[in-house]
Amino acid sequence: MSEQLQPQTESDDGLTLELASWAAAATAEQIEPDAEKFARHALLDCIGVALAGAHEEGVKALFATAIGEELTTHGTGATIMGLSARSAAPNAALINGTAAHALDFDDVHFDMPGHPTVAIMPAVLAVAERDGRMLHDVIAAYVVGVEVACAVGRYMTQSHYTQGWHATGTVGAIGAAAAVSHLLGADAETTARAIGLAVSQCGGLKSMFGTACKPMHAGRAAHNGVMSASLAARGFTARTDMLETAQGFAAAFAGARDAAAARAGLGTGVHGVRGILFKYHAACYGTHASIDAMLHVREEHAVDPTEIQKVELVVPEENTRICDIKSPTTGLEAKFSMTQTAAMALSGVATGDINNYSETWCADSNIVSLRERIEVEVDPSEFRPVATARVHMRDGVVFGSFADLGVPETDLARQERRLSEKFRLLACGQLGEMTDAFAQRILEGAADTPVSTVVQGL
Amino acid sequence: MSEQLQPQTESDDGLTLELASWAAAATAEQIEPDAEKFARHALLDCIGVALAGAHEEGVKALFATAIGEELTTHGTGATIMGLSARSAAPNAALINGTAAHALDFDDVHFDMPGHPTVAIMPAVLAVAERDGRMLHDVIAAYVVGVEVACAVGRYMTQSHYTQGWHATGTVGAIGAAAAVSHLLGADAETTARAIGLAVSQCGGLKSMFGTACKPMHAGRAAHNGVMSASLAARGFTARTDMLETAQGFAAAFAGARDAAAARAGLGTGVHGVRGILFKYHAACYGTHASIDAMLHVREEHAVDPTEIQKVELVVPEENTRICDIKSPTTGLEAKFSMTQTAAMALSGVATGDINNYSETWCADSNIVSLRERIEVEVDPSEFRPVATARVHMRDGVVFGSFADLGVPETDLARQERRLSEKFRLLACGQLGEMTDAFAQRILEGAADTPVSTVVQGL
Repeated sequence: MSEQLQPQTESDDGLTLELASWAAAATAEQIEPDAEKFARHALLDCIGVALAGAHEEGVKALFATAIGEELTTHGTGATIMGLSARSAAPNAALINGTAAHALDFDDVHFDMPGHPTVAIMPAVLAVAERDGRMLHDVIAAYVVGVEVACAVGRYMTQSHYTQGWHATGTVGAIGAAAAVSHLLGADAETTARAIGLAVSQCGGLKSMFGTACKPMHAGRAAHNGVMSASLAARGFTARTDMLETAQGFAAAFAGARDAAAARAGLGTGVHGVRGILFKYHAACYGTHASIDAMLHVREEHAVDPTEIQKVELVVPEENTRICDIKSPTTGLEAKFSMTQTAAMALSGVATGDINNYSETWCADSNIVSLRERIEVEVDPSEFRPVATARVHMRDGVVFGSFADLGVPETDLARQERRLSEKFRLLACGQLGEMTDAFAQRILEGAADTPVSTVVQGL
Repeated sequence: MSEQLQPQTESDDGLTLELASWAAAATAEQIEPDAEKFARHALLDCIGVALAGAHEEGVKALFATAIGEELTTHGTGATIMGLSARSAAPNAALINGTAAHALDFDDVHFDMPGHPTVAIMPAVLAVAERDGRMLHDVIAAYVVGVEVACAVGRYMTQSHYTQGWHATGTVGAIGAAAAVSHLLGADAETTARAIGLAVSQCGGLKSMFGTACKPMHAGRAAHNGVMSASLAARGFTARTDMLETAQGFAAAFAGARDAAAARAGLGTGVHGVRGILFKYHAACYGTHASIDAMLHVREEHAVDPTEIQKVELVVPEENTRICDIKSPTTGLEAKFSMTQTAAMALSGVATGDINNYSETWCADSNIVSLRERIEVEVDPSEFRPVATARVHMRDGVVFGSFADLGVPETDLARQERRLSEKFRLLACGQLGEMTDAFAQRILEGAADTPVSTVVQGL
């Protein structure tokens, strides 16, 4: 064992039950208006990416395998979004969670670190729909789940992730179990068993990134959350100290046991839902900061792309290894090209529209001309997801811009506008002219709207 | 990382594909008659323990959660044994695997180390039934799965288990994926992806022993095997080197990478099915060697228990910590009492009958009298599952006996008799007067018997 894996100074004794007690005792009144906004935004975004992701090959294979093509099912159960199907809640969570992460276009949280919503929301939604619960039940359970996932992520520290674990599949499952436990009205002891059950069933390694297994890890986490919370509620036996016990989660999954960080701010919302970072561009995450920097320039100065002499784009060195394809020709290559995506953003081509990552835009003469005027430079001292741009106009004017993806949005009206636009692009194929009304219902609908009336038929 | 976790001298490059290639190329002709016998014995035993285990509380909770009480399902799918239900193959494997391990009365293999049959057989059975396959398909797939699980277990070495992992849930899932891949006729590349998918979804920690999570780990492994092999067959993308790759199975799951041991004997059957050790006593495994030692004395010398002056029983020290309750009063306590179970065995009370672990037998005056004449001694140098007994008769004669659970049975006719008797006790409640005929069909039935005709209605 390396030094890094030794327990920190603050004892982690009783941590599982502490988190479970907090989750069981959390009340709707504790959820501040900002946190509720974030939860509604996450719900809208989750449905959007799930509807668009449901048609990926891997999701369809998962559906055929888990549900069984030879069977027909009758009864309430839960909706499998985008596939006009229903199943028992665990498999609905499995498939919806996988679909929602299939495009890697869903939100992230640095405390986990990973993708909180695709692990937690599909679990909550499936059980809430099945059990006839309301929108406010989903919001409360989701907020609790994200808070627990963030606390567990801080407890494990970056060590868990850097040693190979895909925290979305592991920490995300624990968050999902806590969320569904809250939804089911579990007490602290039951919630602690649910967390233990989630540890007993969780997994997923980063070495599978680049394959269809990555989104499946999110779906498995959601499935795990439904199973663990439901089994615990039915009295299934499990340890109540599984995070910290000998050969428990921290020990076996390379956690560095920072109990102080886990406890810090639990329940304040600052580390939880209000730390969620949404994605607005359907490309590799490494391209997002430079796209945002370009959009700032375009929005503030209304530049004419043909009048740009050159763009200097300063990014972390890591970016040049993952998304620096200089002459992309396919849609997939475009997603891994900082210059292509930056040129699209400067030219007003929507980077949130998955259809714009195409051979056509890769070959567009104006885009090609502009991307060749973008010079990527490296700041070797920078490791955060940031980009600095200097846009040199032919008339000598220089516009500067900076974007930092690591800072959650404080202008929630702006976040809502951007997410609504993103949802429109993702969901209009399925929802058609109902798209905006659907979004409005999620964003502004009465808290006692039954979940089933929202998701049925998706 | 400790020294122990460094790679051994022989390179593990390409190991996943090597195992997958062997599994894909294995033919029915390679399965020697002894191996087929072992496979039929394992199938019979698996059905027996699943039928008896299906009524445990945890299994019923799992059924209600995974299948959904609010749904009804129509179609072929696969049988959920003991519960008069059907579902898609993955959930049938989940519940049958959990039921089969619920009593901890199923077989073990020291190469994994763990419980091969409950992880592998329910996966194979569910897919074989659904797809209209024959008994010989099940036998071949099971033999392949056990062989791969044993090879992976040797590759990981004891390190994987001692660091906290429940190999039944992890290595067992990989074996199940290889088994179902063989059943589905997968090529080497597809089988390697299935192994990768199994790694991506596997888990289970020993710290959950003593809870209902332990049997669930077996069920999850079986579920995982069906999902992984089926997804791989449908083209789901995954790495083909997931055992040995950086931050893959060995790295993340504390494997010591003994590639030479993994490769040694692959396909000879010596390490595989012919190394399976069946259980005949429905008590803690620590009591089994002493029970067997008593049975040897009883069978060979027809002793009258009332004529026994005392019994000296020499066991590993570990036994005194796990199964040395001196005055058991409940059925559960009886299972963890070497003297109670030894007295029952000497007196002809069937230790394979779960109903004999009862308050009645704990309070029986003859049993109590005899167990108080049994003196447990410790051999601190012994760590294997063995027991040495010296039975002192009142007339001065001393009968010696020794039992070693670590040696697979070579007298397969004896193994078959004992397993048939065990099956009768486990299954007669459900199968009634059909019990022996059912067993006969498994043990001697034509290789082209359709699986569905065997398991439907169980």
